[in-house]
Amino acid sequence: MTKMRAVQVVGYHQDLRMAEVDVPEPTGPFDVVVRIGGAGVCRTDLHILEGQWAEKSGVALPYTIGHENAGWVHAVGSAVTNVAEGDKVILHPLITCGLCRACRSGDDVHCEASAFPGIDTDGGYAEYLRTSARSVVRIDESLEPADVAALADAGLTAYHAAAKAARRLTPRDRCVVIGAGGLGHIGIQVLKALSPAELIVVDRNPEAVKLAVSIGADHGVVAEGQHVEEVLDLTGGHGAEVVVDFVGEGGATAEGVRMLRRAGDYHVVGYGENIDVPTIDIISTEINFIGNLVGSYNDLCDLMVLAARGAVTLHTQKYRLEDFQTAIDDLDAGRVRGRAILTP
Amino acid sequence: MTKMRAVQVVGYHQDLRMAEVDVPEPTGPFDVVVRIGGAGVCRTDLHILEGQWAEKSGVALPYTIGHENAGWVHAVGSAVTNVAEGDKVILHPLITCGLCRACRSGDDVHCEASAFPGIDTDGGYAEYLRTSARSVVRIDESLEPADVAALADAGLTAYHAAAKAARRLTPRDRCVVIGAGGLGHIGIQVLKALSPAELIVVDRNPEAVKLAVSIGADHGVVAEGQHVEEVLDLTGGHGAEVVVDFVGEGGATAEGVRMLRRAGDYHVVGYGENIDVPTIDIISTEINFIGNLVGSYNDLCDLMVLAARGAVTLHTQKYRLEDFQTAIDDLDAGRVRGRAILTP
Amino acid sequence: MTKMRAVQVVGYHQDLRMAEVDVPEPTGPFDVVVRIGGAGVCRTDLHILEGQWAEKSGVALPYTIGHENAGWVHAVGSAVTNVAEGDKVILHPLITCGLCRACRSGDDVHCEASAFPGIDTDGGYAEYLRTSARSVVRIDESLEPADVAALADAGLTAYHAAAKAARRLTPRDRCVVIGAGGLGHIGIQVLKALSPAELIVVDRNPEAVKLAVSIGADHGVVAEGQHVEEVLDLTGGHGAEVVVDFVGEGGATAEGVRMLRRAGDYHVVGYGENIDVPTIDIISTEINFIGNLVGSYNDLCDLMVLAARGAVTLHTQKYRLEDFQTAIDDLDAGRVRGRAILTP
Amino acid sequence: MTKMRAVQVVGYHQDLRMAEVDVPEPTGPFDVVVRIGGAGVCRTDLHILEGQWAEKSGVALPYTIGHENAGWVHAVGSAVTNVAEGDKVILHPLITCGLCRACRSGDDVHCEASAFPGIDTDGGYAEYLRTSARSVVRIDESLEPADVAALADAGLTAYHAAAKAARRLTPRDRCVVIGAGGLGHIGIQVLKALSPAELIVVDRNPEAVKLAVSIGADHGVVAEGQHVEEVLDLTGGHGAEVVVDFVGEGGATAEGVRMLRRAGDYHVVGYGENIDVPTIDIISTEINFIGNLVGSYNDLCDLMVLAARGAVTLHTQKYRLEDFQTAIDDLDAGRVRGRAILTP
Repeated sequence: MTKMRAVQVVGYHQDLRMAEVDVPEPTGPFDVVVRIGGAGVCRTDLHILEGQWAEKSGVALPYTIGHENAGWVHAVGSAVTNVAEGDKVILHPLITCGLCRACRSGDDVHCEASAFPGIDTDGGYAEYLRTSARSVVRIDESLEPADVAALADAGLTAYHAAAKAARRLTPRDRCVVIGAGGLGHIGIQVLKALSPAELIVVDRNPEAVKLAVSIGADHGVVAEGQHVEEVLDLTGGHGAEVVVDFVGEGGATAEGVRMLRRAGDYHVVGYGENIDVPTIDIISTEINFIGNLVGSYNDLCDLMVLAARGAVTLHTQKYRLEDFQTAIDDLDAGRVRGRAILTP
Repeated sequence: MTKMRAVQVVGYHQDLRMAEVDVPEPTGPFDVVVRIGGAGVCRTDLHILEGQWAEKSGVALPYTIGHENAGWVHAVGSAVTNVAEGDKVILHPLITCGLCRACRSGDDVHCEASAFPGIDTDGGYAEYLRTSARSVVRIDESLEPADVAALADAGLTAYHAAAKAARRLTPRDRCVVIGAGGLGHIGIQVLKALSPAELIVVDRNPEAVKLAVSIGADHGVVAEGQHVEEVLDLTGGHGAEVVVDFVGEGGATAEGVRMLRRAGDYHVVGYGENIDVPTIDIISTEINFIGNLVGSYNDLCDLMVLAARGAVTLHTQKYRLEDFQTAIDDLDAGRVRGRAILTP
Repeated sequence: MTKMRAVQVVGYHQDLRMAEVDVPEPTGPFDVVVRIGGAGVCRTDLHILEGQWAEKSGVALPYTIGHENAGWVHAVGSAVTNVAEGDKVILHPLITCGLCRACRSGDDVHCEASAFPGIDTDGGYAEYLRTSARSVVRIDESLEPADVAALADAGLTAYHAAAKAARRLTPRDRCVVIGAGGLGHIGIQVLKALSPAELIVVDRNPEAVKLAVSIGADHGVVAEGQHVEEVLDLTGGHGAEVVVDFVGEGGATAEGVRMLRRAGDYHVVGYGENIDVPTIDIISTEINFIGNLVGSYNDLCDLMVLAARGAVTLHTQKYRLEDFQTAIDDLDAGRVRGRAILTP
Repeated sequence: MTKMRAVQVVGYHQDLRMAEVDVPEPTGPFDVVVRIGGAGVCRTDLHILEGQWAEKSGVALPYTIGHENAGWVHAVGSAVTNVAEGDKVILHPLITCGLCRACRSGDDVHCEASAFPGIDTDGGYAEYLRTSARSVVRIDESLEPADVAALADAGLTAYHAAAKAARRLTPRDRCVVIGAGGLGHIGIQVLKALSPAELIVVDRNPEAVKLAVSIGADHGVVAEGQHVEEVLDLTGGHGAEVVVDFVGEGGATAEGVRMLRRAGDYHVVGYGENIDVPTIDIISTEINFIGNLVGSYNDLCDLMVLAARGAVTLHTQKYRLEDFQTAIDDLDAGRVRGRAILTP
């Protein structure tokens, strides 16, 4: 059995450590082993090291971290028919059972028996990773694993929320996007591709607002005190039919609800604070709060088509796998523009 | 101009007073004057007298109260084509413009220029009331105005929420109804008529639970401390796909959310307290909160078909118009079984 | 390897023959071997013997016929987690791949690589049958395999069409069912369970119409020349919002289209003749023709819930496996009331 | 009463004639009189002169022709609140009642009591036209009535079909547009604005195909014998998820059905021949045929937003009202590029 390098969590509140471990092999009939081409370094990884996920995931240490992965198929189990050795793939973050009601309905994110590589089993800060045939999406030849890896989780969440929001949007509607950071950036591009609505983007950072407008937002609003009123002005005083909130903390939700029109949808994506709204307000305006988790396998397939078409792009900052600590430090210090990616 | 009797609000924190006023006439081309056959006495009427609606409605006193009305068409304006003198009708609670985007979309409840008889203009505690051709629904010959009047607002709200909830319900789904009082009672009957889901009804009152089961609930749960666990037991530990909350106060929402399955819909109908839920819980379970206002004109037409078929019935306690004070007092004292109705 | 009895196609235009063959074993990780409790004898089986499916299925003779199966789990492959030995199950007619876009969307009937036991691989006129974990639905303890087997294909097709039709039906709508035979009989019960619309059933056979009314149809119309006019009379001269056509031959479609209201849906389920309608009529009335194939795995799960509840029942006429020729002959001669079922 | 010029049908198989008639005035409370800024000259107008609509419309001669109209509000009835004198407007082709179930559902095209100016009552080849408040849509200041008039009917039909088709289209889907003429040209632009699907346009005219690609089609296919195979090649051999057929004659439908994938939608817009397809094919592939009439008032509002944004444009060739015969002759002889418009 050959060996490979893998970056592992060895203890909470400790640094990650590079280890030498066995290259995984397909043991089950639907197993797929992927040679990693890019692994996203995500804020969730920092939270894992702080121990925030320890109880929830119940993972035994040490284990290999990294939940945004793309690469090439290295080996497949006996029953795998959808990919073959050498295929370029991105990995859905979950390994799902395929048999429960959620899986049978295309809603695999709510699988009753899923595993989550990088969170509760070995992930992608490594040379190889074992996943399932149900989790691999072939990508276009024009795409590189290291360029799209970060779309596997953060991007997929943004796609999912934007696609759900887009279903009701017509040319006359307005959609407010709160937060033009990592997820919001993808969300704006997806809303632009999927919906004809007018897009209003709100962010505290004037640079992020400028960038949002450059990638398709119809209006940019800097959140510096008058932003609720500005949005109301831009929507004829009524508010927007849809708000997609990629922030969810620091008072964003109370402000966001003020930007929402009667009968509007408030999409919760970012998190931190509570939704805390009087029921009398919810019924008298008949508004909805829509939860959004990461996207399904189908969502990831759709997102990869947009990526191949150049409709969704992402700025990445690449690091060699052995420089994992620099990547983590840069992310923690806010020195990463776009997304940090580990490459072999 | 002939005169009629009308029960009016003459001041807040004062009793209603019987007055003699002019019988209304059609002045606009789409006006319809209805001879009242039944006017529901609703808890909202008590709130009006307490002044809770004074600022919101901006109505000038004195005016005639009563917002749940049914009767016979007495006179019509020049452009009215959908009803004729003598037709038996129930009245949608709102008079809507027919020209704004909401009205043009069948979503007339969100009309940008509506009036609300009994709240901000003269209502139905009277012999006659003026409304619009857009607000009258012809009812089946088998129905009596006094029997269905209370369906015009309370019943219509329950119908609207139940019909929205039913859209996603399949035979395998469970739907929890919180509150088997006035609205819940109608909601249960509508859910039974419109959806194949298993119905679980929760109420603090054992009598209400018994009644719920007698009109079609598959399971009745008395809320006396273990009810959340009972619902979880009835749903395989997962919670229900849909919760319709006709209570919305006294801790109902926090309990209701615990009864909700991943990816479930929480329908807010009753009000009082706040929806106060961590965004992290909303996104990690991907649940939705759906606001519900009163139903549309189309909803009222559909509800009247169910009523004519006997699929939705309501117990009423009738009072003569001149006995309005007794009706109000009985309602306030909890002495009304079903709904109190004033009749001519 | 133990042996079992199996009824096989040995040549087209020849009688079926009882053979002794090996009991199948799970060879793949998701295989499930089922001990047959009931196998439906279907008109399609007659067509197979006439050679109508020979080219389409490409099956090599001899093989075991029978595509409507239910029984008990006898053995499972290494990766099967959703059923265990001894479970009572009904079998979805298709074995699907689980990996193609259709399967990942819950639309498994359009799987790009499915097998069809009884048509293109060994079926259920036998003591045992091998299928997949993806095809078995556990049924309620109160149900017997021999009683529900015929719901596996004919019933599932009716469920699928009725459930699709029901999605748009409100209490004010009318739904015409053409044909109250095997499929129509199930379709009527499903429409009754899933929709609040008024049901009008049309059939040439007065007995079938009588039966339809007894199981819930609101109106029965015997097709003896004036039936289109009768349906128009029952629908205020406008026609019905939805027509579900379980016949599809002998002029049914031309008549059915005349029974359809503007903006209505015409569900094609039965087949034989062509849909042959001027495009000018399709656009000027804006009607739709909706194709319906057999139901999905999810549809079968939902149907089994209705069956367990007693909301869908089916009359069956049972034969021992060794009496297969009598069953075939009775079916061919029109001597079967309800559905013929082979039992072990 | 002032006089105006109007071009009238004085007899079938005769030339139109310019007449002097009264300027219409608002007589009903919801009447709106519009000063015409542009009136589209449409192939339907030629058919009217040939008498093809005589029986269907039952219009009494002489009357003023022209059903694609835009201009400025000249006078309004007493109850009109949505437009005021001087407003720039486009006219929905129908005058609808606002009270029937279709109107109350936003589906006004199926109004049970509509009038159709230019077809069954006086139209827009004139200086003024009387319509209803329910039919006028205010347009953006940047748009000119003469430039958008042809969107009122032909464009609206294309919008309606394209918007319905777009609802199910995801980035992975393919949509075939058959016919890149007047309607198809608009349909392509709308599909591009509303959907992320890959667009394949098929037309017999290489110039039309070239134009289609220049306005956003992803692939252009010239129909010269191999086009069905070319579309199959472009769709991995499976066909497209959606076909929108703006032709509907000359064999287009049989070819179009061959281009359609399993479970696909075939949108019928153009007309002439029959849809003539075996029911066995409809059920075994589970395809749908979707009828499309002209768009609703809401559709027209949405289309005008796209027009104001420059997302939908139309080439027009303008004629003075007095040159109506030249416009008619040019249209008949195929000398009009884009759409012919009469201007005051």
